Amino acid sequence: MKIKVAQSYGSCFGVKRAIKIAEDTKNSYTYGPLIHNNQEITRLDKQYNVKLRTNLSDFKIGDKAIVRTHGIEKNELKELKEKNIEVIDATCPFVTKPQQIVEQMSNHGYDIVIFGDEEHPEIKGVKSYASSNVQTVVVVSIDDLKKFYLKDRVAVIAQTTKRVDQFLKITNYLIRRHKEVRVFNTICNATFDNQSAASDLAIESDVMIVIGGKNSSNTKQLLNICLDHCKDSYLIESENELEYNWFKNKKQCGITAGASTPDWIIEKIINKIKTTYSY
Amino acid sequence: MKIKVAQSYGSCFGVKRAIKIAEDTKNSYTYGPLIHNNQEITRLDKQYNVKLRTNLSDFKIGDKAIVRTHGIEKNELKELKEKNIEVIDATCPFVTKPQQIVEQMSNHGYDIVIFGDEEHPEIKGVKSYASSNVQTVVVVSIDDLKKFYLKDRVAVIAQTTKRVDQFLKITNYLIRRHKEVRVFNTICNATFDNQSAASDLAIESDVMIVIGGKNSSNTKQLLNICLDHCKDSYLIESENELEYNWFKNKKQCGITAGASTPDWIIEKIINKIKTTYSY
Repeated sequence: MKIKVAQSYGSCFGVKRAIKIAEDTKNSYTYGPLIHNNQEITRLDKQYNVKLRTNLSDFKIGDKAIVRTHGIEKNELKELKEKNIEVIDATCPFVTKPQQIVEQMSNHGYDIVIFGDEEHPEIKGVKSYASSNVQTVVVVSIDDLKKFYLKDRVAVIAQTTKRVDQFLKITNYLIRRHKEVRVFNTICNATFDNQSAASDLAIESDVMIVIGGKNSSNTKQLLNICLDHCKDSYLIESENELEYNWFKNKKQCGITAGASTPDWIIEKIINKIKTTYSY
Repeated sequence: MKIKVAQSYGSCFGVKRAIKIAEDTKNSYTYGPLIHNNQEITRLDKQYNVKLRTNLSDFKIGDKAIVRTHGIEKNELKELKEKNIEVIDATCPFVTKPQQIVEQMSNHGYDIVIFGDEEHPEIKGVKSYASSNVQTVVVVSIDDLKKFYLKDRVAVIAQTTKRVDQFLKITNYLIRRHKEVRVFNTICNATFDNQSAASDLAIESDVMIVIGGKNSSNTKQLLNICLDHCKDSYLIESENELEYNWFKNKKQCGITAGASTPDWIIEKIINKIKTTYSY
C-alpha cells in the first residue's frame, strides 16, 4: 500500500506560534485549552509546566495567563488585566482580525453576521467584540439567518476554519436581500489550503486518515471533505486508534491533519501505518 | 388561446418619473435618448416638443437639457452646468445611487468592480464618478475579472438591470480572493420582480411575447429568461412585428415587457393578439 501525505496539512502559523509562546512562558497557565489537541496540551504541561485552567476566578496576582489561540471574550481579557495578571496573548492573528472587524463594523452601525458555531470559543470571543447598539447574529445556515430581521447594511465574517463554499451561501443570501453587504473573508488560508489538498488526495486514495483533535472544528471539516470523495476516511487522535481492517486490500492511504495537530503526532501515526499496516 | 400577463411587468418607477419630467418640460432637449424606447421618444417629440440631442456641443444658453434616465458622465453634467444651460435631471434615483457609491468608495481607496456593459450609457455614467486614484474595472464575466489585478479591498456594484444570479458569480469570485469585498446590490427591484414574474410565466406558457426596445438591456434579459423556459419567446417593439405562426396551436400566450416600455404600447400589442391571433 502506498502512503501519501496531502500537499498541505497539519499545524498552521497560529498554532506553531502559540506553542512557541507557551514553550517560552514556563510555569504559566493557559485560560482554556491553548489549542484543540489534548496530547500537545499534556506535553506542554509535562515539559514546560504550562497548565490548563478553565475558571477565570482561579487566576491570581503573580500568575502568568496565556490567552489561547482561539482568543477569549473581551470582558474576560479585561478582567484578567484588571486583576494585574501578566497576560501573554497567543491569540492567532487571524482571529484577532475578525475581533477587530466586528468591533469596528458594529461601531459603524452595521448589523453583524458571524458565520460560525455559536459555542466555539473563537466565535464566543469574536462575538464579544460587537457593540450592543447593533444586532449581532451567529449562524451556520440560511435557515438560521431566516430567523432574524437585519438592517439594510450588514457586515459578515466567518469563523477562520469554515468552508468557503458554505460561507458563500450565506453571503449570497445576504447580497440578494440587503443594500450593502460588507464581506470580510476571514477564513484562514492555511485551513483552505489543507482542505483543497485533502480533497485532491481523497479523490485518488481508497483510505484516508485524518489526524487531529476530535474537538477541533477544522479537523472535523477535513474529515467531511475526505468523506465526500473517499468513503473509507477516519479521524484519529493517536496511533492507538488505527484499525487493521481499514487498510486491508487498499492501494493508497492518504494522510492529512488538522491545523492544530503538531508534527510529532503525525509522524508517530505515519510510522505506525508504515510498519504495521502497509502490506 | 389564453393570454396571461406577468404578475410584474413593464415600466418602472424611474421610467415613469422621467416621462413625467419630460412632459412637464415642454420645448426641451434630452441629451441622449431619455429611455430606451423609440416609440415613446417619438411621442414626446410630437406631443411635447421634447427633442433628442446626441451632441453635447449642440446645447446653448437658454436651452433646457433633460438628463436621461440612465444618467450621463460627470464631466458632461459639469460642462452643461458651466455653459449655464438649465439642467433638468431625470436620472433614475436607482442610477444616481451607484454613481454616489462609486464616487465615495473610490475616495475611500477601494478598487471598484462594476458588473455591467462597458458601452451602456448607465455604466459609462456610473464609471465616470470613480476617482482616478483607484482601479475601476467594468466586467460582465469572471473571465473579464481575471484580466485585472485588484487590491485586497474591493467595492462592487451592478448595473441596475443585470441578473442577480450573474452578479453573485462575480461577488463569489471576489470574496474567495479578497480580504474585504463591499457588495452594493444596486440591481433594481423592479427589474428583478419583472424577471422573476417572467420566469414563472414562461414556465407555464407555450409562447411568450416580450415587449420593449431592442436596444434595452433589461428587455433583452427578459427575453433570455423567457427562452430558458419557453423556446417560443419573441422580443418585439410594436404590434406590426407579430407573426401568425407564433400563435398557431398554442394554448397560452404569456406577455411581459421591459422596464422602459410604456403601458400604451403594451395595450396596443395585447389588443392585436386578442383580436387577430387568439383562436
